[in-house]
Formats: sequence, C-alpha cells, structure tokens
Amino acid sequence: MPAQLLDRAKPAYNGVCIPEDYHMPAPVDHEARRRHIAEIAADLIAQGGMENATIRSVAAAAGYSTAIVTHYFAHKRELLFWAYRAAAHSTQRRFDAAQAADPDDLFAALQAFLPDTPEGVRAWRVYFAFWSATISDPEMAAEQQWWQANALSIIGAVAIRQHGAIAQPDHVARMLLTTVQGIATQAALDQAHWSAQRQHRLLELQVAAILRHANEP
Amino acid sequence: MPAQLLDRAKPAYNGVCIPEDYHMPAPVDHEARRRHIAEIAADLIAQGGMENATIRSVAAAAGYSTAIVTHYFAHKRELLFWAYRAAAHSTQRRFDAAQAADPDDLFAALQAFLPDTPEGVRAWRVYFAFWSATISDPEMAAEQQWWQANALSIIGAVAIRQHGAIAQPDHVARMLLTTVQGIATQAALDQAHWSAQRQHRLLELQVAAILRHANEP
Repeated sequence: MPAQLLDRAKPAYNGVCIPEDYHMPAPVDHEARRRHIAEIAADLIAQGGMENATIRSVAAAAGYSTAIVTHYFAHKRELLFWAYRAAAHSTQRRFDAAQAADPDDLFAALQAFLPDTPEGVRAWRVYFAFWSATISDPEMAAEQQWWQANALSIIGAVAIRQHGAIAQPDHVARMLLTTVQGIATQAALDQAHWSAQRQHRLLELQVAAILRHANEP
Repeated sequence: MPAQLLDRAKPAYNGVCIPEDYHMPAPVDHEARRRHIAEIAADLIAQGGMENATIRSVAAAAGYSTAIVTHYFAHKRELLFWAYRAAAHSTQRRFDAAQAADPDDLFAALQAFLPDTPEGVRAWRVYFAFWSATISDPEMAAEQQWWQANALSIIGAVAIRQHGAIAQPDHVARMLLTTVQGIATQAALDQAHWSAQRQHRLLELQVAAILRHANEP
C-alpha cells in the first residue's frame, strides 16, 4: 500500500487497514459500457466507414484501453454488430418520441426513419456498412431482418390507428416502409442534395398517394 | 530461340529468323480484359462480400496472374469501383432490353432494377458493398449519384412517354425510383422471403397508387 494511503489509514479493523477515503469501487455496469463503446463505434463508422472503426480507434475515442474494448468486442464483426444495434435503437427512440408527442401522427412516425437529422444520417451510414456485411454473414442478415420486421410492425400499428378503415393494412404498412426506405437510401447517399425539407416533401407526396389509393376502392 | 523453332525456321529475311508457324500475337483488348476482371470481381463480391474479392482471388477466378490483375486494378478500391460499374451496366442492359421489347412498358422498365433474377441480386449485393464504401470516398459517392441520376432520367422518360399528361412528371419519376429502390433494398436483404412474384406485386400496387394520384387532381 503506498505511504500516503497508509498515513491516512483508519486503525486496522479485523486486521485490515482501510484508508479513510476508501470507497468500494462502483460495480461496472457492463451493459452500459458495451452500449457506450457501441455508440462510439457507430460514430466512427458514420464518420469514415468501417475502416475508421478499429479496436484501437474506438478505444482511443472512448477513453478506454484496447484491452477493455476487446473484452466487449473480440473483433470487428462484434463492433459492427453492436454499432448497428446502437443505430437501430436511436431510430427506435426517435419513433418513440414522435409517438409520445402524438400517437396518431403517422407522418411524424415515418419521419423518425429518415436521415433528416445528424442522428438519422449516422444511423443510415451504419446501416449501409452493416448491409454490406450481411452479404457474407447470415447472423447479421437475420438481425437486419428482425429490425426490418420491427419497423413494418410499428409503422403498421400507427397507420391502422390513424386510418382504421384502410383496405389491406398489411399492404399499406409495407408500402409506407418501402417509401421511407427508398427516400432514406437516396438521401443518405447524397446528403448535399437532400435537405430535411426535401425528404419530407417527397414523403408527404408518396404517403398521400398510398393512403388515397388505400381509401378509395 | 528454342531448337524446335530454329529447326522449322524460314531462311533468315533481312537477318531476322522467322519461324514458319509464327503469328503476330493478337493485340490485347485492354478494355475488354478490364471489364472481364470487373465482372469476376462483381461475382465474388456478390457471393461473399468485399472480403471475398481480393486481387489474388479475382486473379485465380479469372485465370490471370495477380500481376495482370494489378495492372488494371492497383488495389481493392479500384476493383470495387469497376465491380460497381459492371453491376450498374448489367442493370442498364436489362432496362435496355425491356425498352427494346416494348418502349411503352413502364412496369417492365421498372422491373429491370429489381433483384428478381440472379443478375439483379448480384447487382444489389455489389451496390451494398459500394454504398458502404461511399461513406469515406467522395469519388465513389459521386459515381453512385451519377447512376442514381441516370436511373431517374431513364425512368422519367418512360413514364412521360406512357403517361404523357401526368402532372409533375419529375415528381412521378422520383416517386417511381423511390419505390423501386425501397422494394429492391428490402428484397436483396431478405431473398428467402422476397420472390420475384412478391416484388412485382408490391411494385404493381405502388405504381398504381402513384399514377392514380398523379392523374387525378
């Protein structure tokens, strides 16, 4: 024990010398730390592609040693997996916030999926990196399909609540998701030409066409 | 010169000994060879992702030495660039064939962009690899945007020819492209659940909604 701690030590208790300013270290919240590292990995991927997110660069940006990072992410595949989840969760949070503000606002619910904010752009850049990796990775493909099904389900629920009487609600939900994904991919690949306003205008046009078609026999 | 060639050599002409069976080697068609290698790279990327397409694996699959491959593609970035062009050209050829069969068939023209054939699936897998790379590569982003503008333009031309009186033809072309891209990305990421028939049915539904909206004030 270093001298300065011994100097300030309480009298030995049960034979153990306990420094006055000693506190039990807070237990490490492993889930929180993993999420934190995953968020940093998502940032780095969104900034410079997969090459930009190495164990070393993520550790440096997170302020951890590479040993700590590799404790949570054995290799790049793990990093990408969790970066994808971080991006998908950020979209889910945007959707949830829109729903909390107005559960019947279908348009706001759909906007949550667009790259119309820095957060949204980040998410789509991570999605592209992940989509590319799904080509050779069935587990990643399954993860992507899970989130795709989730998006369809939450979009469908809002559409049905707002337009209860729509014919073929499954088709309408799928058409809405298709539209969102079509706009989002174009916008994320060419941000200079796709302002938030432009994305929203196209979304409005297409949603109007879909709902009109669904509501008129 | 090996003995067997000398044996069959014609008499020296101007002091040069020319074997009887000598032919000038055919000039190498460098463009054709580059395209051939790019097609092989596209196949390998579509089969197993970017990791699957190395200078070495492309050379082996093409039947060339790695020296020949690196003559055309100095590094992986070049390979990916040309694999992307190979995929984009294959889509353009499908579109051209649909147009040659019936220049007024908007639906067939749009189908040309879908992953509803092995060729289409290959193209989309290469697109995903390329999209991922555009995050950190402005030249690749510009190339992607060029092809995106090309798709918008050729789709728009067919839409206007078939539905001359549509209001806001630019918007209609954009909505059609958005729909195609939304369907294609979903289908390419989950081929087991997206038969050609399912892709076509969704495309029909959305195109009907868009054209109906465009044609009715």
